Amino acid sequence: MVSFQELSQQSPQSSEASRFERGLSKLKEIDGAAGDRVIESLQQIAPDLGRYIIEFPFGDIYSRPGLDLKSREIATIAALTALGNAHPQLKVHIHGALNVGCSREEVIEVLMQMAVYAGFPAALNGIAAAGEVFAERDKEKIVETRESETL
Amino acid sequence: MVSFQELSQQSPQSSEASRFERGLSKLKEIDGAAGDRVIESLQQIAPDLGRYIIEFPFGDIYSRPGLDLKSREIATIAALTALGNAHPQLKVHIHGALNVGCSREEVIEVLMQMAVYAGFPAALNGIAAAGEVFAERDKEKIVETRESETL
Amino acid sequence: MVSFQELSQQSPQSSEASRFERGLSKLKEIDGAAGDRVIESLQQIAPDLGRYIIEFPFGDIYSRPGLDLKSREIATIAALTALGNAHPQLKVHIHGALNVGCSREEVIEVLMQMAVYAGFPAALNGIAAAGEVFAERDKEKIVETRESETL
Amino acid sequence: MVSFQELSQQSPQSSEASRFERGLSKLKEIDGAAGDRVIESLQQIAPDLGRYIIEFPFGDIYSRPGLDLKSREIATIAALTALGNAHPQLKVHIHGALNVGCSREEVIEVLMQMAVYAGFPAALNGIAAAGEVFAERDKEKIVETRESETL
Amino acid sequence: MVSFQELSQQSPQSSEASRFERGLSKLKEIDGAAGDRVIESLQQIAPDLGRYIIEFPFGDIYSRPGLDLKSREIATIAALTALGNAHPQLKVHIHGALNVGCSREEVIEVLMQMAVYAGFPAALNGIAAAGEVFAERDKEKIVETRESETL
Amino acid sequence: MVSFQELSQQSPQSSEASRFERGLSKLKEIDGAAGDRVIESLQQIAPDLGRYIIEFPFGDIYSRPGLDLKSREIATIAALTALGNAHPQLKVHIHGALNVGCSREEVIEVLMQMAVYAGFPAALNGIAAAGEVFAERDKEKIVETRESETL
Repeated sequence: MVSFQELSQQSPQSSEASRFERGLSKLKEIDGAAGDRVIESLQQIAPDLGRYIIEFPFGDIYSRPGLDLKSREIATIAALTALGNAHPQLKVHIHGALNVGCSREEVIEVLMQMAVYAGFPAALNGIAAAGEVFAERDKEKIVETRESETL
Repeated sequence: MVSFQELSQQSPQSSEASRFERGLSKLKEIDGAAGDRVIESLQQIAPDLGRYIIEFPFGDIYSRPGLDLKSREIATIAALTALGNAHPQLKVHIHGALNVGCSREEVIEVLMQMAVYAGFPAALNGIAAAGEVFAERDKEKIVETRESETL
Repeated sequence: MVSFQELSQQSPQSSEASRFERGLSKLKEIDGAAGDRVIESLQQIAPDLGRYIIEFPFGDIYSRPGLDLKSREIATIAALTALGNAHPQLKVHIHGALNVGCSREEVIEVLMQMAVYAGFPAALNGIAAAGEVFAERDKEKIVETRESETL
Repeated sequence: MVSFQELSQQSPQSSEASRFERGLSKLKEIDGAAGDRVIESLQQIAPDLGRYIIEFPFGDIYSRPGLDLKSREIATIAALTALGNAHPQLKVHIHGALNVGCSREEVIEVLMQMAVYAGFPAALNGIAAAGEVFAERDKEKIVETRESETL
Repeated sequence: MVSFQELSQQSPQSSEASRFERGLSKLKEIDGAAGDRVIESLQQIAPDLGRYIIEFPFGDIYSRPGLDLKSREIATIAALTALGNAHPQLKVHIHGALNVGCSREEVIEVLMQMAVYAGFPAALNGIAAAGEVFAERDKEKIVETRESETL
Repeated sequence: MVSFQELSQQSPQSSEASRFERGLSKLKEIDGAAGDRVIESLQQIAPDLGRYIIEFPFGDIYSRPGLDLKSREIATIAALTALGNAHPQLKVHIHGALNVGCSREEVIEVLMQMAVYAGFPAALNGIAAAGEVFAERDKEKIVETRESETL
C-alpha cells in the first residue's frame, strides 16, 4: 500500500514560493521573451493558468534532474508535431530547443522523423513552423550553436 | 507587462504540504478506492507522477471554486470519450461522476452527445466503458443518485 | 435479441418535419445568429449537411431530456478543446454556453481543466478562443449571467 | 439568406419510420450479423444510440446516392485507421468493405496507404485488425470477390 | 521465419533512380502544380523531406497496383478530414481527387460521411476546404469529370 | 524553381538493395528481436509494409546523420506517448531507447513530461507501457546503461 505520508515528503521543493520562482527562472532559460508573452497573454482572462504553467511544467517538470534540457525540448517538439494541433506552442518550443543547445539541423531531423510516426502532413506542418522560427531568428540575428559543434 | 511578483501571490495555497493534502482529500472524494489504485500503481516506477497527479489535477484544478464537481466530471468524461485513447481513465472518471452526484442517465447522455463531436465510434467505446462501470457498481451494490432526483 | 420493431417505436418524435423544426428551434436557442451562419455557409456546396446538423445534433441530441443544456455545452466545449482541431466550432459553442446560462468564469474553468486531460497547449488554445468570444460579446454588449449568480 | 422552409423540404425521406427502415436495411447489407451485434450490445444501457446509428449513418448517409458503397467503405476504413482509436469499429467496417465488393488486396492497400498520412503505427494496427477479420472469414468460409476481378 | 533475402527481392523497383522518377511522374499526375509547390517549399530547410515525399508516398505507395488512384484519393481525403490537423494537405488532395477522376459531388459525399466517424466539426472543416478548392478551380477554369458521368 | 534532377542526386544511397540492407542493420541495432517479430507478423498479409518499414524509417530516417540514435528514440517515445494509440509500437521503442543507451530514468522522464503536452492519461498509459517493458527486460536479465552513467 502507498504511504501517502512518505509520498508527500518525497518532494524536493521546500515551498510553494520557491516552486514558482524555480519555474519562472526555468521558463526564462528555455523560452526567453516568448515565454513572457504567453504568460502575459493570459493575464486578462485566465491568470491562474499562467501561474500553473510556471509552476507545473517549468517549476516541476523541466526543473527535474534525470534528463537534460536539450533532450526535453526534443521530446516536446516531437510530441507537438505529432499531435499537430498546437502550432503556436510548437514555435515557442522550436525557439526553446535552439535556446538550450539544439542545432537547426537537429530540430529538422526530429520534425522529419515525425513523418514515420504521425504521417507526412504532420511533418510538413512542423517544417513550416520551423521555417517561420528560423526566419524570426535570422531577422533578430540570434546566434546559435553551429551544426558542426553538435555532431 | 506581467507583474510576476503579483502573479506569485495570487495563489490561494499557503504551502506545498497543504496542496498535497488538499489534493489527496479531493482525490478520495471523487475517485474513492480507484484513485488510490492509480497512485499505488505508480509507486514502483514513477512515484513522482503519482505525487503530481495529487497536487496538480486534484490539489490545484479540482479544488478550485468556480465550477461544481458534477460539472467538472461531465467535462472530463466528455474530453476522455472524445480523445478516445484513455479507456482506464475514462472508467475511473465515470465512477467519479457517479460518486459526485451525476446519475447514470446523465453520464449516458454525455457519452451519446460525443457522437456529434468525435464520431459514433468514440461514443460507442464510451458507452462500453460505462457498461463496465455500471456492472462493477451493481456487483458492489453502490447506491447512487436516482435519475428522477437529478432531472 | 433486439426487437427492431420496438426500437423503431421508441422514438419520441412523431415525424421527420417536426424533427427538423425542433432542431431549428434548439439551434436558435443555443447558438443564435452564429448557428444561422453555419447553416448558411453550407448552402452553396453541402446544403444537406446543414439539414443534418439541424436534425441530428439539435433535433435529436440537444432536444433530449436527461441532461440540461448548460451541462451539454460544458461537455461540448470540453470535447472541442481536447480535440483541438475545431477552433471555429469551439467559438460557436463558447457563445452557446454563455447563451444558455454558463458564466464566463465557468467557461474558463472548463478550458483550464483540459490542461489535465489534453495538455497545456490544448488549454491555451481554448483560452485564446474564449478571449475572442468575450471580446465579440463585449463589443455587441451582450448581457450574460453574472458569475456570482451561478456559484 | 437560408430559406429554412426550403431546406426542410429537400429531404428525400418521406417519414421517420421509413428512415429507420431504410437504415436497418442498409446496415444489414453492409455489416451483416456484425451490425446486429452492435445494436444489440446497446440495448441494455443506450438503446437510443442504437436507433440513431441505424437512422443517421445508415438511413441518412450510407443511403445517399452520389457515392457507391465500395467507395464509402474505403473512406471509412481509411478514417478509422488514421484515427487509430476505434479497433472494434474498424473490424466491423473491414468486414463491411469485403461484403460490398472490395477485395482483400484493396483493403490492405488502403491500410498501407495510411502509413503516409497517419504514420506507420496506425497502418500496422490497421493491418493487425485486417488479419483478425480475414481469419474470422476464413473460419466461416465466407466467399468474397476475388482479387483479379477488381483490378 | 522471415527470409529477409526474399523480402528484399520482392521489390518491383529496379533502382533508386527509377523510384524517384516514378514518384515524380505520379506526383505530377495527381497533384499537378500544387505538388511542385510543396516540394519547392521544402528546398530551403528540408530538401530531403521533399525527396522522401516523391520517393515513398508517390514512388512506392501511389504507384502500386491493387487500388485505383480514384479510390486512393478517396482514402486520403477521408483520413485527412478525420485527423483534422492538415488543412493545406487536405486541399492539395481535394485537387488531386478531382484531377484523377472524382466528381465534386463524390468529394462532398466523402467529407460529409466523416461526420459519422470523426464528428460534425471535422466534416464542416473539410467542407470549408472543399469550398476553397472549388473556388480556386472555378477561377482557373479547370474542366472536371461531370457528376453524371461518375454515377 | 526546384531542380528535380539535382534533388534526385542528393541521395547518399547508391542503390535500392543497399537501402534495404542498411535499414535491416539499423532495425536490428535499435529493436533487436522485437523488430524481427514486427516484420514477421506482416509476412502473411502485408509483406510489402514490412519491406517499407525496413527501407523508409530505418534505411532512410534512422540512418541519417544529424541526430544521434538516443535522441531519435526520445523523440519517438514522446510522439507515440502523446498520440496514445500505438501501445505495441511504444513498447518496441521503449526497448529501442534502452538498447541504444537511454537509461530507464531517462525514459520515465520523457513519459512523465508528456503529461504537460498530451495530458495525464497519455502519460499514465506511457508509464504502464514502460512498466511492462522493464518487467520483460528484468525477466530476460538484459543489462542496460546504469542511470548514473547518463546523468
